[in-house]
Order: sequence, then C-alpha cells, then structure tokens
Amino acid sequence: MPERITALDLEPAELSDGTRAYFAKCEEKLGLVPNVLKAYAFDEKKLRAFTDMYNDLMLGESGLSKLEREMIAVAVSSINHCYYCLTAHGAAVRQLSGDPALGEMMVMNWRAAELSGKQRAMLEFAVKLTEQPDKMVEADRTTLRDAGFSDRDVWDIASTAAFFNMSNRLAAAIDMRPNPEYHAMAR
Amino acid sequence: MPERITALDLEPAELSDGTRAYFAKCEEKLGLVPNVLKAYAFDEKKLRAFTDMYNDLMLGESGLSKLEREMIAVAVSSINHCYYCLTAHGAAVRQLSGDPALGEMMVMNWRAAELSGKQRAMLEFAVKLTEQPDKMVEADRTTLRDAGFSDRDVWDIASTAAFFNMSNRLAAAIDMRPNPEYHAMAR
Amino acid sequence: MPERITALDLEPAELSDGTRAYFAKCEEKLGLVPNVLKAYAFDEKKLRAFTDMYNDLMLGESGLSKLEREMIAVAVSSINHCYYCLTAHGAAVRQLSGDPALGEMMVMNWRAAELSGKQRAMLEFAVKLTEQPDKMVEADRTTLRDAGFSDRDVWDIASTAAFFNMSNRLAAAIDMRPNPEYHAMAR
Amino acid sequence: MPERITALDLEPAELSDGTRAYFAKCEEKLGLVPNVLKAYAFDEKKLRAFTDMYNDLMLGESGLSKLEREMIAVAVSSINHCYYCLTAHGAAVRQLSGDPALGEMMVMNWRAAELSGKQRAMLEFAVKLTEQPDKMVEADRTTLRDAGFSDRDVWDIASTAAFFNMSNRLAAAIDMRPNPEYHAMAR
Amino acid sequence: MPERITALDLEPAELSDGTRAYFAKCEEKLGLVPNVLKAYAFDEKKLRAFTDMYNDLMLGESGLSKLEREMIAVAVSSINHCYYCLTAHGAAVRQLSGDPALGEMMVMNWRAAELSGKQRAMLEFAVKLTEQPDKMVEADRTTLRDAGFSDRDVWDIASTAAFFNMSNRLAAAIDMRPNPEYHAMAR
Amino acid sequence: MPERITALDLEPAELSDGTRAYFAKCEEKLGLVPNVLKAYAFDEKKLRAFTDMYNDLMLGESGLSKLEREMIAVAVSSINHCYYCLTAHGAAVRQLSGDPALGEMMVMNWRAAELSGKQRAMLEFAVKLTEQPDKMVEADRTTLRDAGFSDRDVWDIASTAAFFNMSNRLAAAIDMRPNPEYHAMAR
Repeated sequence: MPERITALDLEPAELSDGTRAYFAKCEEKLGLVPNVLKAYAFDEKKLRAFTDMYNDLMLGESGLSKLEREMIAVAVSSINHCYYCLTAHGAAVRQLSGDPALGEMMVMNWRAAELSGKQRAMLEFAVKLTEQPDKMVEADRTTLRDAGFSDRDVWDIASTAAFFNMSNRLAAAIDMRPNPEYHAMAR
Repeated sequence: MPERITALDLEPAELSDGTRAYFAKCEEKLGLVPNVLKAYAFDEKKLRAFTDMYNDLMLGESGLSKLEREMIAVAVSSINHCYYCLTAHGAAVRQLSGDPALGEMMVMNWRAAELSGKQRAMLEFAVKLTEQPDKMVEADRTTLRDAGFSDRDVWDIASTAAFFNMSNRLAAAIDMRPNPEYHAMAR
Repeated sequence: MPERITALDLEPAELSDGTRAYFAKCEEKLGLVPNVLKAYAFDEKKLRAFTDMYNDLMLGESGLSKLEREMIAVAVSSINHCYYCLTAHGAAVRQLSGDPALGEMMVMNWRAAELSGKQRAMLEFAVKLTEQPDKMVEADRTTLRDAGFSDRDVWDIASTAAFFNMSNRLAAAIDMRPNPEYHAMAR
Repeated sequence: MPERITALDLEPAELSDGTRAYFAKCEEKLGLVPNVLKAYAFDEKKLRAFTDMYNDLMLGESGLSKLEREMIAVAVSSINHCYYCLTAHGAAVRQLSGDPALGEMMVMNWRAAELSGKQRAMLEFAVKLTEQPDKMVEADRTTLRDAGFSDRDVWDIASTAAFFNMSNRLAAAIDMRPNPEYHAMAR
Repeated sequence: MPERITALDLEPAELSDGTRAYFAKCEEKLGLVPNVLKAYAFDEKKLRAFTDMYNDLMLGESGLSKLEREMIAVAVSSINHCYYCLTAHGAAVRQLSGDPALGEMMVMNWRAAELSGKQRAMLEFAVKLTEQPDKMVEADRTTLRDAGFSDRDVWDIASTAAFFNMSNRLAAAIDMRPNPEYHAMAR
Repeated sequence: MPERITALDLEPAELSDGTRAYFAKCEEKLGLVPNVLKAYAFDEKKLRAFTDMYNDLMLGESGLSKLEREMIAVAVSSINHCYYCLTAHGAAVRQLSGDPALGEMMVMNWRAAELSGKQRAMLEFAVKLTEQPDKMVEADRTTLRDAGFSDRDVWDIASTAAFFNMSNRLAAAIDMRPNPEYHAMAR
C-alpha cells in the first residue's frame, strides 16, 4: 500500500497521456515523481498551472542561479517550518552546491552560512518579505540594487520568495509528505 | 503619462495577439485591465502562468462560492496589509455581495462581520494558515470538516489562502499599485 | 428597531439638555451622531470626559493639521484592525484630504502613500509607539525633531497615537459598530 | 534644580487657581503631586480632560473594586513595560491590598498571583485586549459574563485596560518619570 | 507548614553534609536559603550542577562587575516575565547598586535607566539574544567590541543572558516561588 | 589549520589531565570531541559546570528516554533556529531512533512526525515554554500529568527544554560551529 501523500482524501483523476509522460520524465530525470505533483494530480488543470509557474520560476531564465533560487526557497521554508519544502529543496541545495553543509544551513539558519554580501542581501530581502510583507519599502529595493541586482533580479527574488510562501502554506494546510528518497540524497 | 504600476523598471515585452485579446476582454468585462496583469506583462510566460493559476482558483469549479473565495483573499490580505489586493479584492467582495459594508469589514477586520459558523471556520483556517503555517495540525482540518466542508473544499480554502500569501508578497515587494477605478466601485 | 451599537446591554441614561444639544449639533454638522457618543451616553460623565479629550486632541490647537491627526488615527487603527475607527476616521481622511485613495491607503497600508519625509517620520513614530511601546528611546524623539517637529508636536503625535490605542481597544472589547453612513462618504 | 519629568521641553503654563488647589489636594492626600499631572500641566485643558477621565475610571462608581482597577492597570502596564505606570500603580496595588507581594506579582507576572477565577478572567480579558485587540470576539465577553461580571463591569474592565494602553504609550513616548517616592511606598 | 516552593510534588532527598553546610552558609551570608536551591535539592547532583554553573557565572572572575551581571539577569527576566528571577535578582540589583530605583527600572524597563553607552550595548545584546536568538550576526558582536568589550566579555554577556533564559523557563514551568524576604530588601 | 569553532578569540587554556582524558573518551565513544566542549575549554571550570549539567540532564536517570530528551532538544532548537544544536542533536535523534526521517522532522517541524499523544504533549509543553514562558500556568502541568507524566518527568521535560534555550543562545551569540562529521551521521 502506498504511503499517503496528503491528509486529504481526494478523488484521483484519470491521468492524461501528457501528465503520464511528464511523470515518466520526472522519474527518469529525478528518480522520483515529486509528491507535490501527485498531490495536485487530482485535477490536471491545477497541476498544470502549478508546474507552469514552478518550472518558469525555478528553472527558467533568470539573473539568479538555480542554486540561489533554491537557497531562497529553503530560507523562506525555514521560517515557515515547512517539512515538505525543507526536505525537497534542502536536497536540491545540497545537490546543486555539492555542499551538504550548505543545505543544512539553509534549513536550519541561513545566517550560519558564509555567503557573499550580495547573496546575504538577497536572503535578507526574502526573509523580510516573508516575515513582514507589510513593512516593505523602497529602501529594501534600493539595498538589493546597491548589492548589484537588476530590477529584473528583484522581481525574481520577490516572486521566488512569494511562491514558497504559497507553497509552504498549501503543504502545511494539507500535511503534504515529501518523498522519503530526498532525505538521503547528496549527503 | 501613465501612472507607474510598480517600483521596478522592467523592459516591456511586445504583447502577443493572445495577450492583446485577453486584455481587451478584461477591458470589456471589467472596464479595466487589472494592473497586476500589466505588471506581469513584461514576460508573457510568467503572465500566463499567473493567470492560469488565478483563473482556475478564483473562477473555476469549487464548492466555495466566488464570494467566499474573495472573502478569503481579502481576509488574508488584511493580515498582510497588502494595498493592491485589499483594493482590488475588497471591490470584488463589495460587488459580488452587493454589500459595501461587507467589503469594508473584510478589509478592516473580518471578525466584525456577521457570518455563518461555516464561513467563520473557513476564515479562521485561512488566518491561521497565514499567521502560523508551522502550527497547522489535523485538528484544523477536522474543524473545517465538522463545519461541513469536504476535503476538496479544504484544498480550495487552503490554496486560495496560500495564493494570496504569495500575491500579497509579490505586490509588497515591488510596490504594485491598484487601478484607481477600484476605489469607487460598488460603494 | 435601531441597529445595536455595541455588544453590551447597558441601561440607557436619561440624556441631559446639554447632551441633547450636543447630539443635535453633531447631527447638524456631521449629518449623524457618531455611534461612539451613543455608546458612551449610558453615563454622561464618561461621555463628557471622552468628548473633552477627543475634541481637544483632534480639533484643538496643534502644530499638526487636522488631516495629519486623522492620518495618525487611521494608521494606528490599521495595526489594531479596529473596524469602528477605520470606518469613521478613514472617512475623515477622505473628507479632509479630498483624496479618497489616501483614505484607503491609511486604512490598508500607509506605507503605500506618497508622503513627505516629515509625515512619514510622524507615522513611523506612531506605529512604533503602537507596536513596541516598550522600545521607545530618545533616538525616536530625535528623529521627529530632525524631521522638523517641535517638542509640542511630539506630544501631539504621541498623545494622538496613544488615544487611538485606547479607543481601538474599547471599540474592539465591546464590538462597537460605526454608523453605516460613513462607508459612502467622500468616495 | 528639580529633576526633569519628561524628555520634552514644553513651555510651562501659568497654573490657574483651580489647578493649584487640585495639586495642593494631591499633595495633602497622596503626599505628592503625581508627575503625570505635572507633565500635562503645560496645557490646562489637556490636564483637565485627562484627570476627568482618570478620576471617573479609577475612583468613580463601578462594580470593580479600586484594587481590581489598579490590578488591571498594572497587568496591562507590565505587558507594555511602562516604567511610569508600573511604578505609580504598582505602589497603588501594594497600598490598596496591604500585600506588597501582590503588587510585585502584578508588575512582574500577574499569573504568579493566587487570584479567584473571576479576577483571573478579568485579567485574561485585559491582557488579550492589550496584546490582540483585533482578535476580540463575543466568546471573550461571554467568558466574563460566565465568571459573574455584568455588562457594565465588562465596560469598566475594557475601558480601564484601554486607558492604560493609552497612558503607557504617552509615558513611553515622552519618557515620563515617576515620582521617586513611589518606590518605597507600602513595601 | 512551610509555603510550597514549586508546583511539583517531588520526593525530598536526604541532604548530604555538604549540602547542609552549603545551605547554612547561605543562611549566614544571605539571611536565607534561596528557594531555587531548595527546589533543586530533591536531587543533589542536579543541585550541584546548577550551583557550580551559577556561582561561576555570577560570582566568578569576569570583566563584568557583579552588578552588571545582575542587570543582565533582570533585563532578560523582564522580557520573560519571570516572577522568581525578577524578585530575587531585582533585589540583588538594588543591593549591589545601592540604588533601589535602578532595581525597579531593570525589572520594569531597563531602557528607563540612565546607563553608559557601554552598559546599554551590553543590555541591547542580551535582549536581542533573548528575543531573537536566530537573528544574531557578527555585527552584534562587533557592536560590543566597539563599545569596549573584550571577546571574553562577550562570552560572559552571552552566557549570563543565556543562563537566565534557562532559569526563567525552569522557574516558569514549575511555578517556582521566591523567598518572600526578597521583596523588602534594599528598598 | 583547524577550522574556527566560534567567532570569539579566546585564549586557549592548558588542558588538565582530566580534561584530556575526557576528550579522549569522547573521541573513542563518539568519534569526535563535540565542538561545544572545545568552545568551553578556554576555562576548565566553565567546561566542567557545563558537562556536569549536560550529562546529568541528557544521560542521567529519568522517566524520559534518551531519545525523548533529544527530541525535546531538537524541537526547541528548531524554534530558535540554532545551527549548532540542530546539527549535533538532529544527528542524535537519527542515531537513537534509527529513523533518519524522524531526525529531519524534529529539525524542520516536529508536528510532521507521527508521535504518541504522550510525546506530543511533551513537545507542546517544551514549545510553549520556549515561545511563551510568561504564559505557563497550572493547566499546562495538568496536561502533562493527564498524558501520563509524573511530577519528576515534568521537571525533566522542563529542565531539558530550558537547558536548550540556554545552549541555543550561547551558540547563537558566539556563532558556535558544529563538527562537520555530524552531517553525514546516521543518514
């Protein structure tokens, strides 16, 4: 019997050929189908909207490296104590950086990591946006620009941090469980 | 000279015919193109991912009425003090309910509204998910089920509340400005 | 049957001629008797103490304009999510400024408004005093003085912010309901 | 040279005969003129509005004993860490109760005191109103009524707690200093 | 019948000669055996571990004076609202400083005290460490060094603040009651 | 060159034979000398006080299993985001439980773990004590007793949670770095 993926009992949808192919590709490239995709699969429209946004954000063109985007994901998820995202994206930081300790630091407290001033500014912005979105002001954007980020980069930092504030909350609300394989990856 | 829509200086993209048509439809149906769409229009891929998710969530099939989804949107945005979303979705609550005071209550303090126990449970869940995502437990889902919500409804409450925790933060991070027309709508 | 004004069932007092005259004057000048006055009217001594303090603070001599005092009232009430005060004083900001959007910004998030540095300093002080009264230090007063405020202005900013921290709490504690007329005023 | 009473440099007003008489009465009855009165004395209108409200609230007719009102004052001031009010009203609790330890508990942590369930409910209400005014709901009033309080008592608890949320903030904003005599009183 | 010292009903241990002698010495030097020692006395190993750490920290060699260490103890305990520690260490501040008002300020709000910039930096560090341990960064240590503290002093400030974050919590968890004698000491 | 262990530059002490032997025993039993011991080794008195308390608490007689004490350690450290303690004690949970995922859950969000009601009550108590020590009341102890804990167990839960509130803060204050070996242990 497969382990449950969320706390909700949702009617599974018949998967379309497109989704099947997408899942097969995940299996091939990642060695697993991330549980978040299976959680969304009860409704293919929701699944597609989620993956379109996620893939653009985390894998698309950006002035931020993929590792930097994953660092934002994990630093935000650490504040929100999201078990799913810390597990899955903590593994991604370990993998992309080749530095297991860096992944742990992002999960536990990113301030423990030795980062460039630019990356530190990036994470400070993501943290403030997570904790005190009502207090964001022009000075926060100026700090990013002064650290060397373009306005497009500011958008990417903001939308990545914002996305995980969504994702963390959906996962928390439905008790989404990460694939157990993540725990041992890239240690 | 058009008023600025965000604090970021992003290269505007050439709009595709599809986007042009979509904006024309907005103009026709709503009397305006919501600024959030214009803000995203520097990159059509991002725009489409956002509108796909948004339209499914707020306009698609659901056990929650459109008004209830807008109520969640505004109650969440009130916690996060998001000027953009409170303006745009406060107007939506006023319009959909035909009750201007209800829109104001959602913006100011939803606890002031006389709601059914079921709607109150819905908003309590959305608020806890916004303020303390790390503290969500099975008892929170049970409370929703006891109030009469299905597991699919729980998903919809959770994903709507989660979405506005994203949207509020993107808007805050880039100082997104609502269309001024919203202020006078449905007063 | 008149709508209830608070959640408390208090014996109404026989109104004195003075109070009757005062209410008639309100009706004449404002088009309504603010519900807060009716709420206090069960005890004329309390009513008079309240109005004496309120009128001196909001209408008396001050280096702050009446609009500025109303801005403080609304910014403080926004933090405390006071439905009564946001409704009544949000209307006052719209009226005094002739700028409906400014009223909305004060209600939703004053940081969205384009204010002078001096007014921004004034509201920052009021916000800190509301959120972290235990952390006020000389540097906070110095910031106000450097922004151009006199020591008497500091008193007025402080006592206005302090007053609404009282008023917000009384309204919240007894579920005080604003006059419905406020919603449509000066839109 | 007299010790300064606040951090503000305000033009002292010529005291009227009425105020002089009032201060003389304080001196006679309390052995001192409370510094809060001297702080307000730069403007007799403000002074009178303050004392009218204060005297009605703390000394007027009420279902709450004077000691209970002082307990609320100190419990609220403890949350706000108000040096002035904790000093002056801590002394009042010691005096009125004849129990120095009770005064200390109110200052430090009222939960350490052995109180009746009714008084505990009273202070819990005052604390919630202080910390989370936005979260007050009918259930909070019901708890007070169930503990034996009338609706008028609810008003008195609410307005006392609200008043000290004002007073604490004015004192904090201007660094108001308590009369040194309070420290040794009723130890 | 002796007053209870904690809310727990723990089997009292037979006191060893060493502990008896230690308690006699306390009685002789302090005029009382601090209740915290009696609370730990159900297990001599725990008692000794506690007193060894405490005595080294508060009475051992340090660049901080004993008064400064007590000031940290009380400022931390004020944040945590620890009745036991505020009572016992508030008395210590009054005694060591010979300034009753200083003890009261530490209990109520240390920011009210007129301290040197160096002592202010010391307490700011202790407060941040108490309230936001996750946010400590190199800049916080630099501020202490710039204020004139050595690295060893930083250790002592940190470990004293940390110790009372432990002690406050044990006392709160078991409702530890201070010896009543403290209240009247050094007033 | 050895990696630095803390941000402080403290004169290393000449290690006594006893300490040398103790470190050798650590090396033998754990495969490493925990960096916290090396951090304290600049002063053997402090080192001994720390290890005496630590060893009694985490390894001594108790109604709590060693794993349960480590679970408290990690759940508390997760709230405080302590990189050192999460790394070292997260490894201990993995080792003692033989369940790597359990260690991760304690680090990320203990609420994700499937625990007995008794263990859940234990961690809820530890969390409240960490986050709101000022709000602990008899009802919190009663909940533990109702879950099956003795008064002595309550002491142990309280003192373990309290200890890590100290330890987390010392580590944060001086940027204590965990031995890198912990990361790969018991994965």
